[in-house]
Amino acid sequence: MNLQNSDYASQASPLGGGGGIVRAGIVGGAGYTGGEMLRILINHPNVEIAFVHSSSNAGNHVYDVHTDLFGDTDLKFAAELAYNIDVLFLCVGHGDAKKFLEANPIPENIKIIDLSQDFRLKNDVSSHKTRTKEFIYGLPELNREAIKEAKNIANPGCFATCLQLGLLPLASKGLLNSEVHVTATTGSTGAGQSPSATTHFTWRNDNLSVYKAFEHQHLNEIGQSLKQLQAGFDEPINFIPYRGDFTRGIIASMYIDTDVTEADALKLYHQYYDAHPFTHVTSRDIDLKQIVNTNKCFIQVKKHGNKLLIISILDNLLKGASGQAVQNMNLMFGLDEKAGLKLKATGF
Amino acid sequence: MNLQNSDYASQASPLGGGGGIVRAGIVGGAGYTGGEMLRILINHPNVEIAFVHSSSNAGNHVYDVHTDLFGDTDLKFAAELAYNIDVLFLCVGHGDAKKFLEANPIPENIKIIDLSQDFRLKNDVSSHKTRTKEFIYGLPELNREAIKEAKNIANPGCFATCLQLGLLPLASKGLLNSEVHVTATTGSTGAGQSPSATTHFTWRNDNLSVYKAFEHQHLNEIGQSLKQLQAGFDEPINFIPYRGDFTRGIIASMYIDTDVTEADALKLYHQYYDAHPFTHVTSRDIDLKQIVNTNKCFIQVKKHGNKLLIISILDNLLKGASGQAVQNMNLMFGLDEKAGLKLKATGF
Amino acid sequence: MNLQNSDYASQASPLGGGGGIVRAGIVGGAGYTGGEMLRILINHPNVEIAFVHSSSNAGNHVYDVHTDLFGDTDLKFAAELAYNIDVLFLCVGHGDAKKFLEANPIPENIKIIDLSQDFRLKNDVSSHKTRTKEFIYGLPELNREAIKEAKNIANPGCFATCLQLGLLPLASKGLLNSEVHVTATTGSTGAGQSPSATTHFTWRNDNLSVYKAFEHQHLNEIGQSLKQLQAGFDEPINFIPYRGDFTRGIIASMYIDTDVTEADALKLYHQYYDAHPFTHVTSRDIDLKQIVNTNKCFIQVKKHGNKLLIISILDNLLKGASGQAVQNMNLMFGLDEKAGLKLKATGF
Amino acid sequence: MNLQNSDYASQASPLGGGGGIVRAGIVGGAGYTGGEMLRILINHPNVEIAFVHSSSNAGNHVYDVHTDLFGDTDLKFAAELAYNIDVLFLCVGHGDAKKFLEANPIPENIKIIDLSQDFRLKNDVSSHKTRTKEFIYGLPELNREAIKEAKNIANPGCFATCLQLGLLPLASKGLLNSEVHVTATTGSTGAGQSPSATTHFTWRNDNLSVYKAFEHQHLNEIGQSLKQLQAGFDEPINFIPYRGDFTRGIIASMYIDTDVTEADALKLYHQYYDAHPFTHVTSRDIDLKQIVNTNKCFIQVKKHGNKLLIISILDNLLKGASGQAVQNMNLMFGLDEKAGLKLKATGF
Repeated sequence: MNLQNSDYASQASPLGGGGGIVRAGIVGGAGYTGGEMLRILINHPNVEIAFVHSSSNAGNHVYDVHTDLFGDTDLKFAAELAYNIDVLFLCVGHGDAKKFLEANPIPENIKIIDLSQDFRLKNDVSSHKTRTKEFIYGLPELNREAIKEAKNIANPGCFATCLQLGLLPLASKGLLNSEVHVTATTGSTGAGQSPSATTHFTWRNDNLSVYKAFEHQHLNEIGQSLKQLQAGFDEPINFIPYRGDFTRGIIASMYIDTDVTEADALKLYHQYYDAHPFTHVTSRDIDLKQIVNTNKCFIQVKKHGNKLLIISILDNLLKGASGQAVQNMNLMFGLDEKAGLKLKATGF
Repeated sequence: MNLQNSDYASQASPLGGGGGIVRAGIVGGAGYTGGEMLRILINHPNVEIAFVHSSSNAGNHVYDVHTDLFGDTDLKFAAELAYNIDVLFLCVGHGDAKKFLEANPIPENIKIIDLSQDFRLKNDVSSHKTRTKEFIYGLPELNREAIKEAKNIANPGCFATCLQLGLLPLASKGLLNSEVHVTATTGSTGAGQSPSATTHFTWRNDNLSVYKAFEHQHLNEIGQSLKQLQAGFDEPINFIPYRGDFTRGIIASMYIDTDVTEADALKLYHQYYDAHPFTHVTSRDIDLKQIVNTNKCFIQVKKHGNKLLIISILDNLLKGASGQAVQNMNLMFGLDEKAGLKLKATGF
Repeated sequence: MNLQNSDYASQASPLGGGGGIVRAGIVGGAGYTGGEMLRILINHPNVEIAFVHSSSNAGNHVYDVHTDLFGDTDLKFAAELAYNIDVLFLCVGHGDAKKFLEANPIPENIKIIDLSQDFRLKNDVSSHKTRTKEFIYGLPELNREAIKEAKNIANPGCFATCLQLGLLPLASKGLLNSEVHVTATTGSTGAGQSPSATTHFTWRNDNLSVYKAFEHQHLNEIGQSLKQLQAGFDEPINFIPYRGDFTRGIIASMYIDTDVTEADALKLYHQYYDAHPFTHVTSRDIDLKQIVNTNKCFIQVKKHGNKLLIISILDNLLKGASGQAVQNMNLMFGLDEKAGLKLKATGF
Repeated sequence: MNLQNSDYASQASPLGGGGGIVRAGIVGGAGYTGGEMLRILINHPNVEIAFVHSSSNAGNHVYDVHTDLFGDTDLKFAAELAYNIDVLFLCVGHGDAKKFLEANPIPENIKIIDLSQDFRLKNDVSSHKTRTKEFIYGLPELNREAIKEAKNIANPGCFATCLQLGLLPLASKGLLNSEVHVTATTGSTGAGQSPSATTHFTWRNDNLSVYKAFEHQHLNEIGQSLKQLQAGFDEPINFIPYRGDFTRGIIASMYIDTDVTEADALKLYHQYYDAHPFTHVTSRDIDLKQIVNTNKCFIQVKKHGNKLLIISILDNLLKGASGQAVQNMNLMFGLDEKAGLKLKATGF
C-alpha cells in the first residue's frame, strides 16, 4: 500500500474532541464487522467516512458486497489508504491487524480502533514489534476514563464483552470467590463470512453444538479484566460455548456460589451500570432477541439458593464488535456516547 | 374514553409544517405496528410522543410489552386520550379504527394516520358514518403531493405496498395489458400478535403454506391504485400469498406479458422512483433480507422472452406499515421525508 | 367413559411375550406424544392399534389432527375405551394420567405405559389412590430387567432421559462426587401443542431464553435414579434449561470434577452402554441434529483438566417420550428392543 | 477404478424379481442423495448394501461423513467397485454419471438407477456414447409398467417430480390448454453439500430469493413427460423457483385456465393416483412439513373462478431423489413398492 498523501498531518481534521466531524477510515471493510461499521457510520451525525479499504474489492461499490446498503451510499472500496483521517478502524482478522500495522506505520495523530484480538492482552509479547503503540482495552464499562484519553483501542471480543458485563460488578467488590460456571451460545455471524462446514445452512439450521469447551480464546482477556478489578482473582472460569442456529446475538448464563443476597446483588449491578447508557440490569426474565440489532446489553440477576445466576445478552456484531468500536470512538472524541448508536431493535 | 383536556385546540402545538416538534399520539400501542411506531418515534428528531394508548395495558411501562425498549424509554401506556397533539396514529385492528373514530370524535386540527384497512377504499360505503373525514391513500410513491396536503391518511397494507411498488411504473404508462401473475411470501408478523395454529413455532418453523389464494383482501386497494394511474385497467391480478417461516419481510415475484424491452422497463422504473428516497430499482438479483428492518423497497426488473419479471421486497412492518406511516407523517408536516427512518438494516 | 366390552378379559390377546401381535390402545392421541406414538405404531411390525382415544376429536380421522398421516391410515379417534388390548399408552398431560386411572379402572391384565410424570417418583404420596398399581421407572438403560417383568411403566421425562443417560455410568461406579453442572436446550415441542407467548413463532424464531433455572421438575426423577445406582449421592445438580429455536431435540452439556481419565471414562461409558442398542458413546464432537427423528441418544465424553465434560443429545419426542415408550413396550412383550424403532434420521 | 471381481456374472445374485435379497452398490455415497440412499437401504427388508463407493472418503466409516448413522452401521466407503451386485445407484453430480459410465462399463445384468440428469432426456445427443444403454424415465406415476421392465432408470429431478405430479392427470386427459404458471420453493439440500454464498447460514436464514426464473433446467424433462401424455402440448410453463430458508422439501403452486370444475378435477386426480401408494390428493389446505422425511407427495386441487390451482409438496431428497430411486428399485425387482419406504414423518 502506498500513501495517497504523505502530507497527512497538515490535512488531518482539527477535531479536538469538542464536536465537529470525525473523519474515519475503515480497513477490512468487506467483512461482517466492516459492514456493520459502515451501517452505523453512514448515519452517524458526527462522522464522515474518508475511505473504506478492501484489497479484494477495490473499485467495487460498497453495496456490491453489503447489498443492503444499495440506495444508502455510493461509496466504493479503496485500494489505498489515506491518512487525512482522525480515526482508523481495523476490521481485519485475528493476526492480520498486527501484520497490517507492521506494514503500514500509522502516524501518531491518528487514533486506531482495532477489532481483532491482537492487542487485547497487556503481556502478549508476540506483538512487541507493534508495541510502540499503546492500546487501551476498549470496554467502556471497565475503562471509560482511560478510553477517553486513549490513543489506540483494542476492542473487546464478543463473548468477552458478554461475559465481562455479567461479572464486572462482582469483581469490583471482590465477590468472585468460587468457580465461575458459564454457558453461552453465539450466532453464526460470530464465525465470519467464509463458508465452512459449520456455517452451511443445511448443517446449522435447527442445530446446536458445543465447541472449544473450557478453551475459548476469550478467556484470557476476561481473566485480565477481572483481575484488574479484583486483584487476587484466580478462580477457574468454566466456559462452554455453543454454536447457535441464529445469525446474531449471544446469550450467556453464569453462576457462582455467594452469600450475597439477590437484593444486594441487584443494587450492586444497578450502581455499577447506572452511568453506562447501553448496559441495563433487571430481575425480570430476558431473551436473546431483545437486544438484536442494538448496542445494548441486558443483564438479569437472580438468586437461587446459594447460587447467583447472571444472564447476559448482547448483539455479537454491535455491542460485541462494531457498535462498541463506535462507542469507543465517541468517547475518544468527546462525542455523545450514544451518538449514531440509537439503533432500532429488530424486535422480532 | 374521556378527554383529558377538552381545551385541546388552544394547546395544540402550532407546528405549521415548517419544522418544530410534532406531538404524536398512538392508539393501539401494544400490538406489533404500535411497537414499531414506538421504536421509530423515540429516536425521531422531530417528534415528541404525547401518549401511547392501550386499554389492556394502561399503567404499564411500554417496555413491559415491547421488552426490547427497556433502557430506551420510561413511557407508560395511557388509559385515556389527550388531544393536545398534532397527529394520531391508529394502530388497531381492521374494523376497529372505524369503531374508534365513531366513539371518539377527533378534532379536525389533529391529523390521523390509520394503519388499518378501514379507510383505504374510496367507495367503501361501510364506513360512511366516519366519512365526514376524508382519507388520502398514503402511498407516497403514488400520492406524494396529495399526502403533503392531506388531513388524514389511510396507510396501505403490507402486501398492497409491495405489489403496487412493483406495478405502478407500468400502470403510469398504461402498460398493464395482460393478466398479472403474482406470488408473494410474508413473515409471521403479518399475522399479528395473537397466537394461533399457523403462528405456533412448532408448526411454522421450516414450513411454507399457501393461504387466501386469488382472494386476498389487499387486491382491492391494489386495483384501485392501478386504475388511478391506468384508467381502463381491468386485468385479473392472480395473487398467491404464502405464509413464510421468518418473522419480517415480504418478497413478491410478478410477471406480465409485454413487448417493452428490459432496458426500457429499467429506464421507466428508474424515472418513476428516482425522486423517491426509499424505493430503489436494480437489474441485479435481490433477496429478502436486504431490506429487513429498514423502510426501503428494492425492485428488480428483468425480461425473460415476452415476460417482464418484477421482484419486490420490503419489510412488512416498516415500509409495509409503521415506517410508511412515519414517512407519511414526515410529508404531511413538511419534514425531511427520511427523518427518523434512516434505519440500520439487520443485514443478516 | 363406558366400557365397550365388559368381558374384555376373555378377549385379551394371549400374547405371552413370545412374538405375535400386541394390541395397543392410546389415550390422549391428539397431542404431540400421541401423534408420535401413532407415527411409530402404524409401522411397527408387531403392533395393532386397537383404538386411539381423544375426547375432543372423537369421530375425526387421525389425519385431521396429525395431517402428515394422510394416506397412511384411516383410523379415527374413538370416544370410548376398549379393553380387549394388551397395552395402554397414556399420552395425557401431567396430573391427568392419575385422574384418568382413578376414573377408569384398568384391568390388571392390561399393561400401562404412562408418559406423564404422575408415577415416576416412588415416594410421591399424592398418587396413593392409584398406587394400587405398581409402576416401574421406564428407562431401559437403568431398569431393563425390571421393565421386562413390569406390569406398568412410568415413562421418563425428556430432559430427565437426556441427563440421566449422561450421568448413569458415573453413578454406577460411585463417581459422582462433586456438584454436577448442567445446561440443556430443548425444542419447542417440549412445550406442547397449546399456543403460548413462548411458542409464538414471531417470538421464538432465532431466540433463546432460560427458564426454570435450578428448579426444573425433572430434577426429582434424575436424583432418584442416580441414588438408585450410587446410594449416597447427594450432590447438587445445577441445571439451567433453555428454550431453543428449533422444534425437536435436546442437547445437554454436563461436567463434574473428577480424577478419572478420559480413557477410563470412555471405557466405563462404553461398557455401560454396549448392550443398549440406542445409546452410543463417542469421543468425537456431536451436534443436535444427528439424532433428530430417531430413538437414539449420542453421548460424547471428554476430559478438560480436572473436568469431565459429557454432552448428551436425543429427540425429546422419541427417546425422550414416545420412542422410549415403544422401547419399553418391546421389552415388556419380549419383542426385539428395536422393533418399530429403526427410524430414518432427518439428518439435515 | 479396477474390477474387484472380473467374474462378476457368475456371482451376481439370482434374484429374479420374486423376493430374495437385492444386492446394491452406491457410487457417490458421500453426498446428500448418497446419504439418504444409505439411510433408507440399511433398514430396507429386501436389500443388502454390497458397497458404498466414494473416492474422497475411501476407507472411512460411513458415519464419518453421515454422522447420524453412528450406531446404525459399520460400513466403510470403498475405493473400488464390485460387480457382484444386482443394482447400482449413481449418486454423483450432473455430468459425472455419464463420465462414470464411460470410464466404468457396467455389465448388462446390473441394473442402473442414475440420480443425475444425464439420461433423463430422450433426445439428448450429448450422451450418445453411453446410449448403448437404454434408460427409462423413473417416475412411477407416469411410467410404472415400463419401470418394472426397465434395465436402467433415469431418476427424475426434485422440482421435476413435484411439478409433474401436479400436472400429469391434466395432461392425461389433454386438459393443459393454457399457459401454466408455477412458483416453487426448495430447501437448501437441493443445492448440495458444497458450501457456497447462497448456502451460508448467515445469508440464508430467514431469507428467500428467486433464481433461474423461467430457465430452470428441469423444464425440459417436465415438458417431455407432459408431451408423452398430451401429444400436442406446447404451452409455456412459466416457472419461478425460489430458494427457501429450510433444509428439506419443495412446495409448488401451479395454475391454469380451464373450464373443468373442481369436482371433476378432484375426481380426475383421485382416479389418476388411486393406484399409486405415495401420491395423495386432497381438497384441504396442505403445508410443506406434512411430507418432510417421507416418500409421499400431497396434492391439493382447488378451483378459483376460471383458474385451477394445484399445490404439490414433497421431500426433495426422498420422493424428489433417493426415495423415488428406491421406489423404482422396488418396482424393477418385483418387491412391494413401499418396501423400505414406510418412513416416519418428522411432523414438526
